[in-house]
Amino acid sequence: MAGGSGTRFWPQSRENRSKQFLKILGDETLIKATVNRFRAFLKPESIYIVAKAGQQDRLRKNVPDMPPSNFIFEPEGKNTAPCIGLASLIIEEKHPGAVLIVSPSDHLIQKEKIFQRTLRAAVDLAWREKGLVTIGIQPDRPATGYGYVQIHRKIDCKDRVEAFRVKTFAEKPNFATAQRFLKCGDFLWNSGLFIFRIPSLFRAYSRFMPEMCRGLMRIRKSLGTKKKDSVIREVYAEISPQSIDYGIMEKAKNVYIVKGDFIWSDLGSWEQVYKLSEKDSDGNSVSGEAVLLDSRNCYVHNEQGLIAVLGLDDLVVVQSEGATLICSREKAEEVKQIVDMLKMKKKDQYI
Amino acid sequence: MAGGSGTRFWPQSRENRSKQFLKILGDETLIKATVNRFRAFLKPESIYIVAKAGQQDRLRKNVPDMPPSNFIFEPEGKNTAPCIGLASLIIEEKHPGAVLIVSPSDHLIQKEKIFQRTLRAAVDLAWREKGLVTIGIQPDRPATGYGYVQIHRKIDCKDRVEAFRVKTFAEKPNFATAQRFLKCGDFLWNSGLFIFRIPSLFRAYSRFMPEMCRGLMRIRKSLGTKKKDSVIREVYAEISPQSIDYGIMEKAKNVYIVKGDFIWSDLGSWEQVYKLSEKDSDGNSVSGEAVLLDSRNCYVHNEQGLIAVLGLDDLVVVQSEGATLICSREKAEEVKQIVDMLKMKKKDQYI
Repeated sequence: MAGGSGTRFWPQSRENRSKQFLKILGDETLIKATVNRFRAFLKPESIYIVAKAGQQDRLRKNVPDMPPSNFIFEPEGKNTAPCIGLASLIIEEKHPGAVLIVSPSDHLIQKEKIFQRTLRAAVDLAWREKGLVTIGIQPDRPATGYGYVQIHRKIDCKDRVEAFRVKTFAEKPNFATAQRFLKCGDFLWNSGLFIFRIPSLFRAYSRFMPEMCRGLMRIRKSLGTKKKDSVIREVYAEISPQSIDYGIMEKAKNVYIVKGDFIWSDLGSWEQVYKLSEKDSDGNSVSGEAVLLDSRNCYVHNEQGLIAVLGLDDLVVVQSEGATLICSREKAEEVKQIVDMLKMKKKDQYI
Repeated sequence: MAGGSGTRFWPQSRENRSKQFLKILGDETLIKATVNRFRAFLKPESIYIVAKAGQQDRLRKNVPDMPPSNFIFEPEGKNTAPCIGLASLIIEEKHPGAVLIVSPSDHLIQKEKIFQRTLRAAVDLAWREKGLVTIGIQPDRPATGYGYVQIHRKIDCKDRVEAFRVKTFAEKPNFATAQRFLKCGDFLWNSGLFIFRIPSLFRAYSRFMPEMCRGLMRIRKSLGTKKKDSVIREVYAEISPQSIDYGIMEKAKNVYIVKGDFIWSDLGSWEQVYKLSEKDSDGNSVSGEAVLLDSRNCYVHNEQGLIAVLGLDDLVVVQSEGATLICSREKAEEVKQIVDMLKMKKKDQYI
């Protein structure tokens, strides 16, 4: 899934340069790193990218050796439920009954071997139980920026991977609730990775999202005809945006969670990136041309000219594409406010 | 005097773009504002500019209607004593016995009528008493960035302007001393404006700076000959840098101070500029494209792209010529440290 349009990494992310196209914490764009992560254990032709129409060129630049027919374009973004539905229909044409792994394209994942083992186990489970499987991450802090999944009884899973039936999904909690989740011990972070057989998914659409299901069935009928593109556009214009979490996962009964022991972050803000990045002895993380004097625990990312910081601690400075963000680390989660203000002031070149 | 090469306004000021060529607190460069301030009551041909060789083009752009023969170029900067000596020699050729007003070209002065009245009185005094006259400013705070002059007994001066004999000069004091000066009441800030008849000055050179005087006399002899430029270069290469304050004013006996009631600042740092600038209701002073959110008492000057500040107070941000300075207001006096570090790292394009 590469349809997102993040504002949380402004000014590096823009309306037409969303987070998956940024090089965050590495030399590769996040989408390229994501594709490579799957190529390590899947055939290239088994990997599909769903993106917004208009991003063709940028995608091809990022993954030039991807077969063109493995790009799927949505006419507009309507959250994850239609995105996953459309991809399932198109993959179903070639591989009815296949197991899909659905993955965001803009997350950080480290420890690839564990990642692969976890996913193999999840695929095995989805196949065996005909259920909807999600990947959960053991929380190490009371994060308020993630959704949580409460686990129920343990079930068998291969390769010493732990798996559970899901008790409940919980949306992003406040801090007190997050602390309770952490203490309680049976809550995992919802990583946004889903695994299921295509028929299992369509049964869930039919049961929990009947209207969206009708739209998807209209698209299914149009596939292979000249009407395909116009039907997809019509259906997308009519349906309301909905996440797969809210639309299906929270309602379905046959939902499983497989615990991933790899390192994972949704990279939700510059503050998170600072925490995950390498720092010098003053606690500063610096990329690009910069000098810091008498300054500690700062995150500086610079793509043009020189940045000089003097006598300041706990700062985020990002200079990219003609704009410079300067904020305190504790306010880094609120960068969207800047983008909102720029929209209000119609400063289109910076949005 | 336009020979300075300030580092205190980095990144706007550079090795070849010193403070007098900046537009600080106004629409005009400081040097242009200075020339205009004198043109308001002096004939254009009576105004001379002493600058460093190599700054011809920049000067002509700033004051295009200045007679070319009124530019005086020093081969290198050796502080104010040789600068004022050279200018006096060259002006003496046309106007022996004239009274000179020596002025920095990079200060802020407001209330021009009072400025003019003060200078007329100072010229009158210099003429009458054959002394060396300086202009003093009533301190309104215990500034540690200025030199002070202690006044002695009052003497007659025209136009209700107050004038005194000088008791002592005091270099930039520490904070406790500056507080004592302020409380004591008979200390004025040394504005760097001097007024004297050319013969009075040369008597002082001869008495207090005999070596520099010999150099100046060599130059005097060469004026009007083909050797002029090479003699000036030779003399400048030999003499040690010296300020007129230290070399003459602090030692001479016939020194007077005229009190200026105009508004004056030597604009010594971004912090001073912030204090003198207009602010919005959040105490922010902003020039150029910028958005500030949840931020107070900041100084932002931007010459390219957009700057966004979020959740930060008491910040100085200056973006100019490919470099961005971000510092706390209280550290603004230490910007020179950045320039020193850039020199050490040989980042020549930013110096």
